[in-house]
Amino acid sequence: MSILVVGSVALDTVETPFGKADDALGGSAIYFSAAASYFAPIRVVGVVGEDFPEERLEFLSKRNVDLTGLESKPGKTFRWGGRYGFDLNSRETLFTHLNVFEDFAPVIPDKYRDSQMVFLANIAPELQLDVLQQIKSPRLVALDTMNFWIEGSLTALKETLMHIHVLIINDSEVRQLAKEPNLVKAVRAIREMGPKVLIVKKGEHGALMFIEDSYFWAPAYPLEFIYDPTGAGDTFAGGFMGYLAKTGELSKENYRRALIFGSTMASFCVEKFSLEKLVDLKDEEIRERFTDFWHMTHFDHENSGF
Amino acid sequence: MSILVVGSVALDTVETPFGKADDALGGSAIYFSAAASYFAPIRVVGVVGEDFPEERLEFLSKRNVDLTGLESKPGKTFRWGGRYGFDLNSRETLFTHLNVFEDFAPVIPDKYRDSQMVFLANIAPELQLDVLQQIKSPRLVALDTMNFWIEGSLTALKETLMHIHVLIINDSEVRQLAKEPNLVKAVRAIREMGPKVLIVKKGEHGALMFIEDSYFWAPAYPLEFIYDPTGAGDTFAGGFMGYLAKTGELSKENYRRALIFGSTMASFCVEKFSLEKLVDLKDEEIRERFTDFWHMTHFDHENSGF
Repeated sequence: MSILVVGSVALDTVETPFGKADDALGGSAIYFSAAASYFAPIRVVGVVGEDFPEERLEFLSKRNVDLTGLESKPGKTFRWGGRYGFDLNSRETLFTHLNVFEDFAPVIPDKYRDSQMVFLANIAPELQLDVLQQIKSPRLVALDTMNFWIEGSLTALKETLMHIHVLIINDSEVRQLAKEPNLVKAVRAIREMGPKVLIVKKGEHGALMFIEDSYFWAPAYPLEFIYDPTGAGDTFAGGFMGYLAKTGELSKENYRRALIFGSTMASFCVEKFSLEKLVDLKDEEIRERFTDFWHMTHFDHENSGF
Repeated sequence: MSILVVGSVALDTVETPFGKADDALGGSAIYFSAAASYFAPIRVVGVVGEDFPEERLEFLSKRNVDLTGLESKPGKTFRWGGRYGFDLNSRETLFTHLNVFEDFAPVIPDKYRDSQMVFLANIAPELQLDVLQQIKSPRLVALDTMNFWIEGSLTALKETLMHIHVLIINDSEVRQLAKEPNLVKAVRAIREMGPKVLIVKKGEHGALMFIEDSYFWAPAYPLEFIYDPTGAGDTFAGGFMGYLAKTGELSKENYRRALIFGSTMASFCVEKFSLEKLVDLKDEEIRERFTDFWHMTHFDHENSGF
């Protein structure tokens, strides 16, 4: 099953205590595609400027990522600059040059309109809804958003949430969107807005999924070397949706495995700068780390003796 | 197997957005005992003042908690006052009146000196070491500490760490003690100081255990009503050590279950003010929540199809 992703394509300037990268490949659509393409064919809709070095996307085309929906416009590519502190938990945005991304109005190519899975990366909720109206009858739509849209475009965001299945956002955004500090109550309020499945990203503390009447925790992988957290959230979404698309099975059990594949891909993402680590992973490495997650969480509850 | 616990006995004044309690029963030794006594016999060493309402400990005596090591001294009982903000993650200490606790010099009664399991709650590291020297040959010693001792008594703390098996501390304290922001590196540095097992408490994000060559994550239980986080860490330690004492088995598998029983007891603790919820739990409630943790973390890794 193919996944359509609509989001940003960027050139990032990232500073961490371990080094600096200029004009590194980035953007939500790219991180998502890099991760998801280990599992399923991907269709990308986005925009770049005339200055974009298209050859840097070759590793994606080779892995069954269809880039015909990536429009090239006169002007410069979207650029973002950020700096991380020593603990890598907080980041400062140094600059945001939207450039050609400012007037992004995604047009879904005809051959993509039958997409059964759709990931609406973090863009204006009005655009996310507009994309959805161009898709025939998607089986699964997941959406990411951020504090900027919760503050500035709440009405449009709520309208869009009525049409999606899975919302993937940070824990602070969950509380902000529901105006409720208790996570469980906040999640319930948001699920009443539309999305049946809610995935709460907690960074180095893992992720928590609310599905049907149950919770599921995916830990984060404890890493000794974290070089660059940029893109971890989109990579997580890529692993999650990629696995669902590969298996085509939307059962609760499969969603659980998908969440672990999301955490698995995110753990690779942060181990090197930009997308470096996501360029040529072996399936065997992915399987091994997925199994590590099982070892990290497994316990025998049947013979406790209590 | 009995557990000896040495720590504070206090009367707490706690304010949360949901209410206020004056002179509520508290202190690390009491929270620990209340939780651990569901699993094993407990021996308490601590000090109270003449004003202490001893009848409030009756629920512990009834549950096989030996209080003969609880000394009564002229003067007032240790009192602590704190206030929690709306999200319950941050707290402000309003006052600390050490009173009789100021000159606490724990003397272990002869009949306790054969204790095979010892929990050294958060007191001065010099006192923790002094207690250890009064115990014949303990099989398992666990220790809690805090930023105050890491800053002010580092030499004594490091000396004490050489004599214990399990260190149970907050994630910020792990980083502070090791002077290292990366958790995995910090944990390795601390394990080289002595404790073979390190348990990192992350509050609402759960706990992470490092044992032998593996990690184990215990999530926190997602609760809709959190009234009072006071004592959750000691309750966690109580469930953890209580289960190990009950089963007497110090295998890696059993440590995993013990961590989940720790999280289970901590989740009950925060659901009501002070120790209210820990007074009369049913074993069946504990078993049910323990099983809930399994449901929250379980996934089938063998049939992923990847």
